[in-house]
Amino acid sequence: MYNDLRVCFIGDSFVAGVGDPQCLGWVGRLAAQAYATGQPLTTYNLGVRMQTSTEILGRWQAECAPRFPDGCAARLVVSFGVNDTTLIDGRPRVAPKQSAANLAELLAQATARGLAVLVVAPPPVDDAEQNARTAGLDEHFADICAAAAVPYVRVHHPLRDSAVWMREVRAGDGAHPGAAGYQEMAALIGPRWREWLAR
Amino acid sequence: MYNDLRVCFIGDSFVAGVGDPQCLGWVGRLAAQAYATGQPLTTYNLGVRMQTSTEILGRWQAECAPRFPDGCAARLVVSFGVNDTTLIDGRPRVAPKQSAANLAELLAQATARGLAVLVVAPPPVDDAEQNARTAGLDEHFADICAAAAVPYVRVHHPLRDSAVWMREVRAGDGAHPGAAGYQEMAALIGPRWREWLAR
Repeated sequence: MYNDLRVCFIGDSFVAGVGDPQCLGWVGRLAAQAYATGQPLTTYNLGVRMQTSTEILGRWQAECAPRFPDGCAARLVVSFGVNDTTLIDGRPRVAPKQSAANLAELLAQATARGLAVLVVAPPPVDDAEQNARTAGLDEHFADICAAAAVPYVRVHHPLRDSAVWMREVRAGDGAHPGAAGYQEMAALIGPRWREWLAR
Repeated sequence: MYNDLRVCFIGDSFVAGVGDPQCLGWVGRLAAQAYATGQPLTTYNLGVRMQTSTEILGRWQAECAPRFPDGCAARLVVSFGVNDTTLIDGRPRVAPKQSAANLAELLAQATARGLAVLVVAPPPVDDAEQNARTAGLDEHFADICAAAAVPYVRVHHPLRDSAVWMREVRAGDGAHPGAAGYQEMAALIGPRWREWLAR
């Protein structure tokens, strides 16, 4: 157990928990679960709607710095990618090669600061073509994390197979689920999250 | 009802909800209540532990900017002050006059950007002398908000009189309550919050 564990979650609207009427998202559910198993912690949710990996890479250090004072046990959870694969004028907002480079650069920056990192895959939305592009990123991200020896939680395919997730996404705004969907995502991340926290 | 309401909560550890095993704090509880009454919204919790009004004034614009895109209904909730009244070498971390000036400056900056603001008073901790200093700030803050025509929610004295709040603070780390304490704080803020959101 850590005495002063502080975890920043950096990413997009799925990190922010957009659409969850309980206002917990997967981040709040994982944090509450840590408390329930005897590990209090401070979580900072730094998910921002609509942001691509490029925007997240650009702000993560400035926003994490005041949240990680000297002496705390600092951890970083990263999740992005869906906004990268959104098309504008027929082209993805961020090209897959650039998304991969952004993740590799963020991991290099975090490692240089001695931060332990966990990466969570971008989830599916209600658009099969976009999901196919995101699944491509998922493969790239898995390779990059393996090369960096950083754990990567592959939630994309399991959530595409989740009736709860896909039903809530369709019933919502086409991208974000409700409470049950975020609960599914938290349950998929849970085992790796607990293993990672225990390191 | 707003279509795309986004509320940033800027402040300290009480804004972050430190100590709440449910990981909601008063912010998450107010947000969930808004959903329950038919007003979905995106909330960004920008509370940071240990920060004084000077530090919060220094970062609020940089952190809110990417969270308030053009076209959204943007709102700002502000709460700080307890860390200002902590003594270091016998002197408060921020002098009361400076705390007041920081709040006035933050409100002026927000007003210049056309942002609607709600200010929440700094709550009490398990230290009667510090609470006396914070109660002094509470008076200053009330005057400043009145002059700026910004609603100010006076939770300090009611929470000092709350057996639940004070018991949880004592049982915790001496500053932060647990779930029931944050629920009390959310209940005190609720009426003004709903009135302000409806404007």
